[in-house]
Amino acid sequence: MCGIFGISGHKEAGWLSYLGLYALQHRGEESAGIVVRDGNKINIHKGMGLVCDVFNENSIKNLKGDTAVGHVRYSTTGSSCVENAQPFCAYHKKINITVAHNGNLTNIAALRQQMEDKGSIFQTSMDSEIIAHLIAAGCRRNIEENIIATMKSVEGAYSLVLMIDDMLVGARDPYGFRPLCLGKFEGAYVLASETSALDLVRAEYVRDIEPGEIVFIRKDKIDSVKPFCENRKAHCIFEYIYFSRPDSNIFGNNVYLCRKRLGENLVSECKLDCDIVMPVPDSGSYAAIGFSEKSKIPFEMGMIRNHYIGRTFIQPFQSVRDFKVRIKLNPIRDALRGKRLAIIEDSIVRGTTTRARVKTLKETGAKELHMCVTCPPIRFPCFYGIDFPTKKELIASEHTVEWIRDFLGLDSLTYLSLEGMLNAMPLPSQDFCAACFTGQYPEKPPKKLSKEILEP
Amino acid sequence: MCGIFGISGHKEAGWLSYLGLYALQHRGEESAGIVVRDGNKINIHKGMGLVCDVFNENSIKNLKGDTAVGHVRYSTTGSSCVENAQPFCAYHKKINITVAHNGNLTNIAALRQQMEDKGSIFQTSMDSEIIAHLIAAGCRRNIEENIIATMKSVEGAYSLVLMIDDMLVGARDPYGFRPLCLGKFEGAYVLASETSALDLVRAEYVRDIEPGEIVFIRKDKIDSVKPFCENRKAHCIFEYIYFSRPDSNIFGNNVYLCRKRLGENLVSECKLDCDIVMPVPDSGSYAAIGFSEKSKIPFEMGMIRNHYIGRTFIQPFQSVRDFKVRIKLNPIRDALRGKRLAIIEDSIVRGTTTRARVKTLKETGAKELHMCVTCPPIRFPCFYGIDFPTKKELIASEHTVEWIRDFLGLDSLTYLSLEGMLNAMPLPSQDFCAACFTGQYPEKPPKKLSKEILEP
Amino acid sequence: MCGIFGISGHKEAGWLSYLGLYALQHRGEESAGIVVRDGNKINIHKGMGLVCDVFNENSIKNLKGDTAVGHVRYSTTGSSCVENAQPFCAYHKKINITVAHNGNLTNIAALRQQMEDKGSIFQTSMDSEIIAHLIAAGCRRNIEENIIATMKSVEGAYSLVLMIDDMLVGARDPYGFRPLCLGKFEGAYVLASETSALDLVRAEYVRDIEPGEIVFIRKDKIDSVKPFCENRKAHCIFEYIYFSRPDSNIFGNNVYLCRKRLGENLVSECKLDCDIVMPVPDSGSYAAIGFSEKSKIPFEMGMIRNHYIGRTFIQPFQSVRDFKVRIKLNPIRDALRGKRLAIIEDSIVRGTTTRARVKTLKETGAKELHMCVTCPPIRFPCFYGIDFPTKKELIASEHTVEWIRDFLGLDSLTYLSLEGMLNAMPLPSQDFCAACFTGQYPEKPPKKLSKEILEP
Amino acid sequence: MCGIFGISGHKEAGWLSYLGLYALQHRGEESAGIVVRDGNKINIHKGMGLVCDVFNENSIKNLKGDTAVGHVRYSTTGSSCVENAQPFCAYHKKINITVAHNGNLTNIAALRQQMEDKGSIFQTSMDSEIIAHLIAAGCRRNIEENIIATMKSVEGAYSLVLMIDDMLVGARDPYGFRPLCLGKFEGAYVLASETSALDLVRAEYVRDIEPGEIVFIRKDKIDSVKPFCENRKAHCIFEYIYFSRPDSNIFGNNVYLCRKRLGENLVSECKLDCDIVMPVPDSGSYAAIGFSEKSKIPFEMGMIRNHYIGRTFIQPFQSVRDFKVRIKLNPIRDALRGKRLAIIEDSIVRGTTTRARVKTLKETGAKELHMCVTCPPIRFPCFYGIDFPTKKELIASEHTVEWIRDFLGLDSLTYLSLEGMLNAMPLPSQDFCAACFTGQYPEKPPKKLSKEILEP
Repeated sequence: MCGIFGISGHKEAGWLSYLGLYALQHRGEESAGIVVRDGNKINIHKGMGLVCDVFNENSIKNLKGDTAVGHVRYSTTGSSCVENAQPFCAYHKKINITVAHNGNLTNIAALRQQMEDKGSIFQTSMDSEIIAHLIAAGCRRNIEENIIATMKSVEGAYSLVLMIDDMLVGARDPYGFRPLCLGKFEGAYVLASETSALDLVRAEYVRDIEPGEIVFIRKDKIDSVKPFCENRKAHCIFEYIYFSRPDSNIFGNNVYLCRKRLGENLVSECKLDCDIVMPVPDSGSYAAIGFSEKSKIPFEMGMIRNHYIGRTFIQPFQSVRDFKVRIKLNPIRDALRGKRLAIIEDSIVRGTTTRARVKTLKETGAKELHMCVTCPPIRFPCFYGIDFPTKKELIASEHTVEWIRDFLGLDSLTYLSLEGMLNAMPLPSQDFCAACFTGQYPEKPPKKLSKEILEP
Repeated sequence: MCGIFGISGHKEAGWLSYLGLYALQHRGEESAGIVVRDGNKINIHKGMGLVCDVFNENSIKNLKGDTAVGHVRYSTTGSSCVENAQPFCAYHKKINITVAHNGNLTNIAALRQQMEDKGSIFQTSMDSEIIAHLIAAGCRRNIEENIIATMKSVEGAYSLVLMIDDMLVGARDPYGFRPLCLGKFEGAYVLASETSALDLVRAEYVRDIEPGEIVFIRKDKIDSVKPFCENRKAHCIFEYIYFSRPDSNIFGNNVYLCRKRLGENLVSECKLDCDIVMPVPDSGSYAAIGFSEKSKIPFEMGMIRNHYIGRTFIQPFQSVRDFKVRIKLNPIRDALRGKRLAIIEDSIVRGTTTRARVKTLKETGAKELHMCVTCPPIRFPCFYGIDFPTKKELIASEHTVEWIRDFLGLDSLTYLSLEGMLNAMPLPSQDFCAACFTGQYPEKPPKKLSKEILEP
Repeated sequence: MCGIFGISGHKEAGWLSYLGLYALQHRGEESAGIVVRDGNKINIHKGMGLVCDVFNENSIKNLKGDTAVGHVRYSTTGSSCVENAQPFCAYHKKINITVAHNGNLTNIAALRQQMEDKGSIFQTSMDSEIIAHLIAAGCRRNIEENIIATMKSVEGAYSLVLMIDDMLVGARDPYGFRPLCLGKFEGAYVLASETSALDLVRAEYVRDIEPGEIVFIRKDKIDSVKPFCENRKAHCIFEYIYFSRPDSNIFGNNVYLCRKRLGENLVSECKLDCDIVMPVPDSGSYAAIGFSEKSKIPFEMGMIRNHYIGRTFIQPFQSVRDFKVRIKLNPIRDALRGKRLAIIEDSIVRGTTTRARVKTLKETGAKELHMCVTCPPIRFPCFYGIDFPTKKELIASEHTVEWIRDFLGLDSLTYLSLEGMLNAMPLPSQDFCAACFTGQYPEKPPKKLSKEILEP
Repeated sequence: MCGIFGISGHKEAGWLSYLGLYALQHRGEESAGIVVRDGNKINIHKGMGLVCDVFNENSIKNLKGDTAVGHVRYSTTGSSCVENAQPFCAYHKKINITVAHNGNLTNIAALRQQMEDKGSIFQTSMDSEIIAHLIAAGCRRNIEENIIATMKSVEGAYSLVLMIDDMLVGARDPYGFRPLCLGKFEGAYVLASETSALDLVRAEYVRDIEPGEIVFIRKDKIDSVKPFCENRKAHCIFEYIYFSRPDSNIFGNNVYLCRKRLGENLVSECKLDCDIVMPVPDSGSYAAIGFSEKSKIPFEMGMIRNHYIGRTFIQPFQSVRDFKVRIKLNPIRDALRGKRLAIIEDSIVRGTTTRARVKTLKETGAKELHMCVTCPPIRFPCFYGIDFPTKKELIASEHTVEWIRDFLGLDSLTYLSLEGMLNAMPLPSQDFCAACFTGQYPEKPPKKLSKEILEP
């Protein structure tokens, strides 16, 4: 997964991009980068790790210029190395092309082969490098037409922020898989994956970039084109379930309120008789609040999150097991002892971390442990950018709910139904991609890709 | 403030101390250090910054040995430099004396003068160096008697973990200002400021070290002495209000449950007609849950905390104001707009951060902002280790509640009464030091010290 | 300027490349990089700074594989940033192309335009990226033919080490501007800019790669092609004068002995009556020894070089002037006071450093200062890889010898004559490029390039 | 061994100390530190490693103040850790005592016991901490008298720079084992181990601090006392042979010229018939020049020193042997092949490095290898600060010259005679300590110390 950010026509573009990436950090912890244009000079700073590790006062100072693109990355494919850090930046006939990409292209192999046949070389395995090649290779009358042609040639999921010389470009694929919003700050246009990034730089939310829309921004002038035919939408439902920040609005609606409704909908499906509702922090917290409010079962912060989790935690030698789970969340024994717990979890992927958490909760002396999950079982991989593991590693793909309950060590386990989940969404059901639950992908995935991911 | 940790007779003493300090990080972010004894060799690693910055895999590997003492520090006095990082470590006649101290001694000036008159020199301004001198200077028959004599000669607040050759020592002043607990892990005794440190190393809680008690631990043998006459207790009430972790038990009781009761007690004192109860995260969260449960006003996570707050946030150049407040907490506009909010805050010290928060909340379009504080106004400085600012900087010392309400931009401001606070505590009122609220110090502070702090 | 290294078919290829770059460090201090092939995996480590700063134990360990290419760089053109660090590494149809280049191509602008017209994009401004593009773009039957075609299409100076999948390639331009030698170590072929790199890895010197020759190495098999017509040679004479290490053999002959002869030839041209011959260390030392031996004037180390010169010397605030010159070389007053000095300098480029040195020597109380330079005045820029400044900044381009003598503060200044210099060389005069002295470039430089460099 | 530096009354005292330590780096590479007094504030920066690694622009900026003391350390005793980095800095009755020490005290055990009996504690095993204790413990009328009393109570070798509040103090033991000189720069007095440190800060040499002298400096006022009876001198002869910089004057005379004379004196003792005289660089270079001049045998730089030797050279995995020797010095084959070499070495301690060098030289095809050493065999350990190994590890202590010649693989080996060495010195023989050659120590070493060192 990735987070993208762009700003045009602001003299502190570099520093504002740094702030924007800070707000989008949860979308990618592996690498971070910012590219700023200062007159004809391009300033780049990229590195492995968190935003606060990659940038320091000096590197921010060097990011002078008034148009900028930023990126945080969690690799779905490709190896984890600084060469693969985005934004991708290249030159074609003295025109600088900078690409920040969120999503996953599905016809990349074919596109790459075409270009290699014409003699192109590639330094990375990133989608963003392909996009830069396509923009350069186009022989349309102008750069805007080249960009449109590029968007038409790629398939799959993409939200893009581009900087082509002094023009900032925002684009979303016709399905609208990934979010992208437009804001304004002191006269400068801002593009960001989520509105919480606008909040942090104090930009006012203007609107979402629409599915299939491309906006061309030059200083304070913005032009929009919609080169695609009307299409069904396929917003990633997992952005609401888990991925986006609760304080963000995505696809035009608030995430926190949506998660509360998921918790409310769980109440009637679970029919639990419990003493306490508690979340697995932090992502389960908002559904737990909704669950408590609806069910009248008291809400408790049964586990406390340690705010000092370092990036490089040192491995134990032998004595202490499960310490990584326990250093992050510590249960409050005195509040849980002897109680029947309704534990609200946002989702279960592999099940290994959940299992360790349940074990820790049991040791407190809690009487019964019931888990309620705010979505159905995840049974299918994602081709559009969520870095789920392969089918084999998805616990619900291989096992029944009863098997999983037993594996996790729970007294009961309830997944929210597909209807319960869709009903909690702020948009019509048909506007979402819920393929990870249903296996019904919005477009037929290319054979090779699906083979790789579906049959590991 | 500081956090202390010790372990005796475990072959991974250094690594377990690292884990212990990780759990105590909130008690001191300025420096961290661990001293381990490996046969006759003493291994030391200290540094400025957070535990995760000070230690890396290599430094942990070098902390070989089976008895260890660890310390995290937030300087109350003395300059912020690596020379002042604890544990303090010295030698006297080939005996190693290692001292980790939490609290604040009040007769240090007199003690130091006595020792300097005899020719002693000092490298730091830390209480822990004085304690090492006193232990060495004693001419009692054995080291245990020297330690007892040292405890009798110092005044003020101290919880101590010492390592004297292969003996681990834990001690608390007769008032019991600061917490210190005893645990056991795989046969090894563990000492820690809070039980959450025991939880992380998987140590079983045995009991608290009592006020005025000294325990001498050699491998798996523990001896206890109580050399002081029976005394009144004076547990720091602020440990329950704010300082300790909610998942810790201190002074024998759970912090989370205490904070919930503080919230419950606020309900009747506030008499608010509101739509939503929300905390200032994270420290206000537990009282807010109690407040909601008692008042039946729905609980909302009105602000979301960013978990990626770096230690070295880069300063803005000019455009963005209040970014440090906003990067930490972002309000959820859609959940707050048009609502009357009861905001639960643990305490107000200077008032500046609270003011910025209130401003941010107002911008969401909330209709009314009422703040409820889980303790009375803080009017007096602390001589026993809490690093409150001087009297002049305490907002409630200089101003009326009405003035503060207006300064913060609130519709109403309610502080919990002294009775309401004491009534929520798990121990009798007379066992606490609440001097920061009442000005009634358990022992008369030395003139010089009180002059410095009270009249800046 | 740059240094290049390659090794094929040795299981410690990465570590040996590190050693090789260590020996070639003087050829480029700005950045360093190594690319190793481990089966189908390519391991890359590049960074800004000296070899000892860029690599550490961990990065060397990660450079697993049995074929490797290394590069040290001192940028002649292009900005100084990690993106420009070599070796350049890209992929074309799953074939990895790695390029390490020493020299300067003169028809790069035209080549780049051709490729951009076909849609290629460029990430850097380096010659090595162009070469990778050319190799990929070729549509010959096999990779060897592509490489030959690439060599034929580029003009200017190049010594190259390439790694194309598991094949190591060495190549020199038909003029043979820059050195490149072949060695063998434990059955593995080694390519290096200078023989001192062979010495350090204990490789046996086999022979020089000839001007216009390309060698293809697969494991222990080596094939040579010479696709160019017989050509005049144009070895860079400045490699002997200053650039190469004295313990290296380049162009088949030893540098140290050549420099001694330069000093010997100076004797008859200078006709000095002096008490002492002393070098400006270290590069003038060898000529000074030759001068002393021939003239019978005693040789003294009049200035001592500080071996601890750090890379990041901290700037003075105000008091101390010329400290950068003095920290590097300190004169021995007692050995120079009252003496008439013949100071041997290898060359004078801008003259500023020399001036500071002369001033320092004068302060010792030396009676007369005569400087003898081991080459003629440098009057013309270099198009073939030596990073001389532009014409305006070359002191001898703008001023007479008498003006320079006065500017430097000398009693006399003698440059070795062109004949004196050529006569000291181990190869015929017509085999050298001495254009920086004569302005007679071996091939006509492209108008654009010469305009930029000649008329700044 | 150590280097010390001090400056009083200059507003850039911290930065000048940094320069001074840079010039004294050869006297200690293990740790470095500077303490500066800024009004009543003491600024300290110390660390492990070279001066250029320990200090950066930021740390220099923080070293504000006008009186400073600096130290570089190569530990003779005590473990290598940052706690042992000097200057040592402590407080006694608000008086700051800062100590920088070069040398080795011989009665430290007794002194420490006395102080521990009175209750003192020690944080390090350094002589400088003892000295600080002694100064503080003194109960004389004033600080000057305390310092005098301290000097009288310690035995062994010491050159000291102290800062006691705003007073700078320089002192040497009555034997004058270690050098210490006085300079002046822009009105400020400067103290330094060697004159090359004065040169670098542009200070004018005033005079040496005399053996047994103490100077008290307050701003620009200097007072001298000589509290000791007239004593024999015992200047360390090894400072001239090897330790000091050639561009320094120590004990009032130039080191370079002395080393040249050592080389001259070798000629008559060796009676060699050789083709070439060459040094083992750099320390043997000056004697080799003297040898060549006297013997008329041509001088050659037969081996070239690599100036990029990093501090942290990465260990080879297996293939390459002796690389540490070869990376430092590379022989010039073409200059040595078939030649009879007279190799000038300053001294031989363990013999292992020399052996590797000789092996490398043999591989060049040199015909004969004759080694001439500029001092007699080192047979006895040093109690006064030179970190020779124990007796057992000194090759000449255990073996005959013939055995050593064979071990080193030489055709002949000649050590300069005691008379030849003393005769080259600029001062009378009786003014030197040559105990490492003769075993005749100036004062009887304490039994315990000699036992430890002499019989390992």
